[in-house]
Amino acid sequence: MTFTEKLTRSIQSTQSLLCVGLDPVVSRIPQPLREKISDDAELIFEFCRRIVEITKPHACAFKPNLAFFEALGAPGWEAFEKLMDVIPSNRILIADAKRGDIGNTADKYKEAFFDRLGADAITLNPFMGLETLVPYTKDEEKAVFVLVMTSNSGAADFMKRRFEGRTSLSEYIAEELSKLQTGSATHLGMVIGATQSSDLQPVLSAHSSSHLLIPGIGTQGGSLMELQKVLETHKGIPIINSSRSIIYAGENHEDWISMVLNRTLEMKESFKPITEKYVV
Amino acid sequence: MTFTEKLTRSIQSTQSLLCVGLDPVVSRIPQPLREKISDDAELIFEFCRRIVEITKPHACAFKPNLAFFEALGAPGWEAFEKLMDVIPSNRILIADAKRGDIGNTADKYKEAFFDRLGADAITLNPFMGLETLVPYTKDEEKAVFVLVMTSNSGAADFMKRRFEGRTSLSEYIAEELSKLQTGSATHLGMVIGATQSSDLQPVLSAHSSSHLLIPGIGTQGGSLMELQKVLETHKGIPIINSSRSIIYAGENHEDWISMVLNRTLEMKESFKPITEKYVV
Repeated sequence: MTFTEKLTRSIQSTQSLLCVGLDPVVSRIPQPLREKISDDAELIFEFCRRIVEITKPHACAFKPNLAFFEALGAPGWEAFEKLMDVIPSNRILIADAKRGDIGNTADKYKEAFFDRLGADAITLNPFMGLETLVPYTKDEEKAVFVLVMTSNSGAADFMKRRFEGRTSLSEYIAEELSKLQTGSATHLGMVIGATQSSDLQPVLSAHSSSHLLIPGIGTQGGSLMELQKVLETHKGIPIINSSRSIIYAGENHEDWISMVLNRTLEMKESFKPITEKYVV
Repeated sequence: MTFTEKLTRSIQSTQSLLCVGLDPVVSRIPQPLREKISDDAELIFEFCRRIVEITKPHACAFKPNLAFFEALGAPGWEAFEKLMDVIPSNRILIADAKRGDIGNTADKYKEAFFDRLGADAITLNPFMGLETLVPYTKDEEKAVFVLVMTSNSGAADFMKRRFEGRTSLSEYIAEELSKLQTGSATHLGMVIGATQSSDLQPVLSAHSSSHLLIPGIGTQGGSLMELQKVLETHKGIPIINSSRSIIYAGENHEDWISMVLNRTLEMKESFKPITEKYVV
């Protein structure tokens, strides 16, 4: 099954474009759970496992962010690996690794995330050049999501500045990705921030068939209406990520589980105007 | 002790600018060692431990590349952590992580590499903006080495192109780093490729006090003479990295240990014309 087929099915069966981002921080895990588990790595695993359990009927994808696991060292990596096994195999699993390195190093990462851990997709940083993406591009079951115009304010420092006659470095990168994309290869998607809607049109036009991983809705304050408008003519599929807004919705409340569920349903509902285009 | 003091002492006591890069690949580890150890993570640890043992009188710094450890999952991380403990505390320890992420994620990485693992320095990718560097900049005992103009050919795709009226995006980044550098903060160094000597002058001038981490000599073919010329007027200290040329110098030979030692001495000797400026 190609990545696009798997994504389409997952969206169909959940009727949702929501991706739940897993950014576990020990100090923000609900007190009732923290009281039960004293080991940090075990705790972040159990927290994420429950989040997956609660949200999976309503999320087409899950995106664990490696940094939060690596912060705990080897036990954190073990927690990450165990977590990969509890995410349902019919959902899209995006390893948010933001790696970007040359040939032999990229080969190692590709091996780790795609071959050994079974991720469907990985986020990559293109700064060191297109050759850093090539080791990942040989498998149509997989996708990469390249950082193109991220949701943070620092995107203005380099990505959003004019480059080679284009409106932005982001637009230039999108063009290069479009050239690199061939029929049966790995899908080359883009990470674009919901906070950047007003500057996204040229970027999307430059790689119009690209699936999109979209952070910035929720805690970061991106507008759904503006996002919907800019996506109107885009041919790729948007996956809308929410991390902290969902997973910490019930911070320290006894009934945190129902609060997480309610926030998830609210999010899914709020995405409906965008979702309708992609479900039957 | 500040990072610069520690680096200066390490160069003084080894009379060397050599940094040994630790990029362990199971299939390239000498047969005699492979025969003894069947567990991959244990094998890469033991190989690196011996490389450190052999080369430490002649290397001012060591640079383990995270990717090669992460490829083995949690046991690989354990090997990496164990390795951090065998690198002598009077040598510079650079975690080659190439991370680049926003606020809360960067905080996690800073915690992992500086506070928990005790690295003296980390390599960072600046693509997502200057805010991704800020969490690392509060400690004068530490340094970051920012990817500015890397040694790979893909540097031509984005880094080496004109940007905001500068000769390159690299020059622009160097300028921004120079502005961000304040007296008692973390030292903001740069990664610049020895293969890029002809384009480095404007980059070095833009951040002239910056220590440099320089890959590209050895397997990648950068010229020492050209490098020496471009460093003549630079005020920061160059750390010259060699990974594969040294660690695989004795590939599959019974006497691989003496071959690694000889290659290390050759390298150190070849750097002498550059080293003289920095030793008493």
